[in-house]
Amino acid sequence: MKLYDMELSGNCYKVRLLCSLLAIPYESVPVDLVNGEHKSAAFLCKNPRGQVPVLDDDGMLVWDSSAILLYLARQYGGDYWLPLDIKTMTEIMQWLSVSQNEILYGLARARAAMKFNRPWDIEQCRAHGKLGLAALEQHLSDRPWLAGAHETIADIACYPYVALAPEAGVPLADFPTIRQWLKRIQSLPGYITMPGIVNPDD
Amino acid sequence: MKLYDMELSGNCYKVRLLCSLLAIPYESVPVDLVNGEHKSAAFLCKNPRGQVPVLDDDGMLVWDSSAILLYLARQYGGDYWLPLDIKTMTEIMQWLSVSQNEILYGLARARAAMKFNRPWDIEQCRAHGKLGLAALEQHLSDRPWLAGAHETIADIACYPYVALAPEAGVPLADFPTIRQWLKRIQSLPGYITMPGIVNPDD
Repeated sequence: MKLYDMELSGNCYKVRLLCSLLAIPYESVPVDLVNGEHKSAAFLCKNPRGQVPVLDDDGMLVWDSSAILLYLARQYGGDYWLPLDIKTMTEIMQWLSVSQNEILYGLARARAAMKFNRPWDIEQCRAHGKLGLAALEQHLSDRPWLAGAHETIADIACYPYVALAPEAGVPLADFPTIRQWLKRIQSLPGYITMPGIVNPDD
Repeated sequence: MKLYDMELSGNCYKVRLLCSLLAIPYESVPVDLVNGEHKSAAFLCKNPRGQVPVLDDDGMLVWDSSAILLYLARQYGGDYWLPLDIKTMTEIMQWLSVSQNEILYGLARARAAMKFNRPWDIEQCRAHGKLGLAALEQHLSDRPWLAGAHETIADIACYPYVALAPEAGVPLADFPTIRQWLKRIQSLPGYITMPGIVNPDD
């Protein structure tokens, strides 16, 4: 299995993290985003959106981090990381959506504006991201995981850019319940980190 | 079944459209977005994100348009609209993600900036939306539907804000394959429209 990858991308890290939790071996193929390799004709054949991550599982190409999490969970994780009962699957979809909305277009864009000079309105992105954090903080106040009875791909999808929020200029001091959830994920057997993620209590 | 609804919202229309295609009866409860009803304490109990649509199916509350499509498909649509084989489910998730990324943060935001004076950078949003249209145009060049062998919730999720692209100042003249796909959806038994959607050939 090959993962077209970028070390500082939270979306790529989601995939690396789930692979590690599931003990799936893979080869990381770095994509040179700085020099535009993701917009080359060769790469667009793998992913018409010109983004990382892309997974190549013996010729089965999957792009989009949420779709890759779904694929890995169902192909290699039995029923654990994405149960198919309607209620749990619906809850997981809700938080996958939050991961692609407030978290990606809020927190991740604010981080990309600060760290990679992307042309987004930082304050607008931070405000959008904080709406997502408020929803997470409330939702986690009476349960340990986002959806269902245990950890799922919903937690993996939301985790990276929340854990990286301080790099977006959004400290997590006011979100004690989220900080407990971050530590719960960091305690999972097989957990790996990425550059920029700090101890939630620091 | 109650749908907390807003006539001009493409995200609400997705749900109305799938209900109509599945012949599911429901009561539409209009939410007064202009006067901020979606941010009221009463509404935030239904959806902590303060957005429409929200579905209330006999006490089962579901927010987020993608999650509602998933719920309705699995609860009332058998295996047709969201098949669970890994390959098709992965493909559907890819296009649900496009619907929440380039289409929502590109096309829908550009439309909201034009139509409802929302504070988004219109040109930036249009450029982002066009990336999504290019991916759709390429993907549909050799298949009639976005995922699997027939229409699915992937098509329903992507359809509204693509059909409404002219309201975002993004004409579809350069996307003939997309226009054929729009007409294919408009020919489905039970299809309903919403204000702002015009004949793709006009």
